[in-house]
Amino acid sequence: MKKVRVALLGLGTVGTGTWKILRDNGPMIEEKAGCCLEVARVLVKNPEKKRAVELPEGILTTDFESIVADPSIDIIVEVIGGIEPARDYIIRALQAGKQVVTANKAVLAQHGSDIFAAADAQRRTIKYEASVCGGIPIISALQQSLLSNAILEITGILNGTTNYILTRMTESGKDFDTALKEAQGLGYAEADPAADVMGVDAANKLAILAYLAFGLKLDVKSIQTEGITGVTQRDIAAAREADFCIKLLASAKKINGTYRLKVCPEVIPLNHPLAGVSGVNNAVLVKGNAVNELMFYGQGAGEMPTGSAVVSDIIALALQVA
Amino acid sequence: MKKVRVALLGLGTVGTGTWKILRDNGPMIEEKAGCCLEVARVLVKNPEKKRAVELPEGILTTDFESIVADPSIDIIVEVIGGIEPARDYIIRALQAGKQVVTANKAVLAQHGSDIFAAADAQRRTIKYEASVCGGIPIISALQQSLLSNAILEITGILNGTTNYILTRMTESGKDFDTALKEAQGLGYAEADPAADVMGVDAANKLAILAYLAFGLKLDVKSIQTEGITGVTQRDIAAAREADFCIKLLASAKKINGTYRLKVCPEVIPLNHPLAGVSGVNNAVLVKGNAVNELMFYGQGAGEMPTGSAVVSDIIALALQVA
Repeated sequence: MKKVRVALLGLGTVGTGTWKILRDNGPMIEEKAGCCLEVARVLVKNPEKKRAVELPEGILTTDFESIVADPSIDIIVEVIGGIEPARDYIIRALQAGKQVVTANKAVLAQHGSDIFAAADAQRRTIKYEASVCGGIPIISALQQSLLSNAILEITGILNGTTNYILTRMTESGKDFDTALKEAQGLGYAEADPAADVMGVDAANKLAILAYLAFGLKLDVKSIQTEGITGVTQRDIAAAREADFCIKLLASAKKINGTYRLKVCPEVIPLNHPLAGVSGVNNAVLVKGNAVNELMFYGQGAGEMPTGSAVVSDIIALALQVA
Repeated sequence: MKKVRVALLGLGTVGTGTWKILRDNGPMIEEKAGCCLEVARVLVKNPEKKRAVELPEGILTTDFESIVADPSIDIIVEVIGGIEPARDYIIRALQAGKQVVTANKAVLAQHGSDIFAAADAQRRTIKYEASVCGGIPIISALQQSLLSNAILEITGILNGTTNYILTRMTESGKDFDTALKEAQGLGYAEADPAADVMGVDAANKLAILAYLAFGLKLDVKSIQTEGITGVTQRDIAAAREADFCIKLLASAKKINGTYRLKVCPEVIPLNHPLAGVSGVNNAVLVKGNAVNELMFYGQGAGEMPTGSAVVSDIIALALQVA
């Protein structure tokens, strides 16, 4: 069995989860998938920093050039997040003939066209299951299992942080600020929560889903985006009174011949399939012209669920390489 | 673009759905998947029978030999159902070097080992997404997206007929016999409902899922199987009193080092993710050691959802062939 050599760019939450899964599930992956994955290098900013995982001597590096120039490395995994240097590293990895995995929704939503063009030009593959809804295999469903369908509509709860806040506001009567602080205390929201609570993170993910489902150009600016900062206890109480609840929904569908993409808080009946999706969970409803309605549900974030999607992408590429 | 030639064996519910999807979504499939699929032959018992779809002149045949011997046919799709001649045709198609798609859970659960051995011997692929839960892509999730995980547990509502009957018994207070007759009137249950109501159909599907998830030998006889014929209104009322409901669950998990597979009616709390799965819908909960809990939900039967899975399998094989 050929060893497939992998480099991780970044060792934050997702990178750490990816490392743990490859360490713990490696033998099982060898047996079930028939590929042997070795993490050869891990790019970090500060090699002296204390890490949650123990790494073999000499594996950490601060030098991207040495990774991209190493012909023994087959797959480069970008889990740095943010725009730069992630965008630059992804494109240069593809140009160097590497297969690439990313978990980075922001860079795809904003620079996906350039990135996919670079992959096409080099006949390389970039996989990005982890970029939308963590461990839920919605990307591969749209890329493979639903190719038989014209997709009519996608609606999802794509951001766990805002779903947690809305769930707490609903269940415990807390106001937005208190629920946000609670989410921050639990590590579900970042110190600067803007990208989540303003709906930008969900819009990035929706842009990726709409690209796959409808072939729309990745253009997050065209998505009508409203966050949850304006949702009050009064709104929630009024909804509940009528057996409804409030969820931050991301949706894409064709209306009168044009696609309408939006992210905004919506009032849905309690018997709606998405009404029961609580806490940090995510779910996506997909309507196809043959399959009718499918729902995919699970944890949309966290080191292990997101790492699960990253490792699945690594395996899929390794099976091409080996 | 190479034309990939497909033969359908059978033109019942699933065959008709497959035909309709290839007819209606063919141009979209060409554009999105980059493969051109042509149904070259359709095997039926009685070519004179009136059909729900109009077929081109000369496409119907009663002669399996002429299909399997035709070198221009790349993919053979078995949608006859039942054991024989389905088993024989599948194995002979593989031996003739064809790629094969089947929707047939019974033949896989009972003769899967022989069928997979025939495929391996010929280095051919047999795909069977439609055999479990219709249009829900649970097979490809286990074969691909979840390869990064050790699967810990699978629990599902795998049979739409029994779920419909239990839903009606719960919602309208009907007894088993009345709800069964209603299901038969709507086409959700067959004239001989034994395979569904005795749990055999769900056990067949569970055997396939356990084979994929745990590498267990396909052996439906080892599954402890109990149907829903013993469920009374009294059971349902008692469950509801305590905020529970009764569902026919198929489950597989490791207990004290050995796998326990069973199909039986179970009492679950109303806030359980499977409690909200009503009517003819199916759902599968999968627990992996990295991704934690995922749920897949949708229509588990019907010509279009099941046809959707068959056509996705055809596309995946066509992309290998072309």
